[in-house]
Amino acid sequence: MRKDFGVKTWGYPMPVFIVAAYDKDGKPNCMNAAWGGIYDTNQIMVCIADDHKTTQNIIESGAFTVSIADAKHVIEADYVGIVSGNKVPDKMEKAGLTTTKSAFVNAPIINEFPMTVECKLLKFNEDGICIGEIVNVSADVSVLGEDGQIDPEKLQAITYDPVHHTYIKLGEKVGNAFSDGKKLK
Amino acid sequence: MRKDFGVKTWGYPMPVFIVAAYDKDGKPNCMNAAWGGIYDTNQIMVCIADDHKTTQNIIESGAFTVSIADAKHVIEADYVGIVSGNKVPDKMEKAGLTTTKSAFVNAPIINEFPMTVECKLLKFNEDGICIGEIVNVSADVSVLGEDGQIDPEKLQAITYDPVHHTYIKLGEKVGNAFSDGKKLK
Repeated sequence: MRKDFGVKTWGYPMPVFIVAAYDKDGKPNCMNAAWGGIYDTNQIMVCIADDHKTTQNIIESGAFTVSIADAKHVIEADYVGIVSGNKVPDKMEKAGLTTTKSAFVNAPIINEFPMTVECKLLKFNEDGICIGEIVNVSADVSVLGEDGQIDPEKLQAITYDPVHHTYIKLGEKVGNAFSDGKKLK
Repeated sequence: MRKDFGVKTWGYPMPVFIVAAYDKDGKPNCMNAAWGGIYDTNQIMVCIADDHKTTQNIIESGAFTVSIADAKHVIEADYVGIVSGNKVPDKMEKAGLTTTKSAFVNAPIINEFPMTVECKLLKFNEDGICIGEIVNVSADVSVLGEDGQIDPEKLQAITYDPVHHTYIKLGEKVGNAFSDGKKLK
């Protein structure tokens, strides 16, 4: 039996994307976005309102990064989603977040988050959604496995629970199932 | 220290959305989409290629559902992402998936998946991305908590690992951090 919840902007998983960009003076700011995902080959999308400081920064700088929030920094990730860079100019310092300029785009990499998708602004599309062209993905060596690839168990990415407004850690691997040779019942 | 991976269509988490629609004869089909997410208030997006049977079905029927794949059905979820409905017309039967027509839109709810986002096709946007207007979210009562809401620990949603082409279960809650009264360091 099913229960109907009506019109709800819900999904599982929803990401915890930390979107960061420089303002015209080179000062970094960032925000937390749960509405987003891969848009197309080498493209990522985030739905961010016009009035955010980060939105204005992306328009001015033509670039942004998307950091993957991890369990170690859930407090910081949540804080930058609640506090506005328009009202708290030193929001990033308050959050204890530091940055390094990307070698690929004019946007800040937040050092504390272990994985970053570095993007050129492709456009704000017909619906005002921010579309980025991915020009590099980088990850801290501490989250790499023995194969040199990103290891999700080390990454400890978090997801947003839209029903309870909490965060959930990615857990154990469940195998790749049919492709892995497992049979349908 | 960071490692650069270059241009990669990677994110964490990426969803395992099972997109389903009827063809013009009312026969359901479905596919697995990892490129998607919440697009805007009450809107969901999925990037699905033109040549998919499900894409054609969505265009013809004007509606679709997005099921949240769960750990119990990872084999089925993976199978419907690998096998094409154009080549295997009885793909859903082969996967052991059954459907019930949504009470809200002209699209099939897959009974085996515990949560479904029921959508009217709003449009394929300027980039060919499928945008749905969410008209209802439904969930099986077996995944509800005592508060009557969806309980992520019961839902056991899975996510796609684009690096290893495997699936990862959502795990434990990490609290809502700053909003929960926790302090920045």
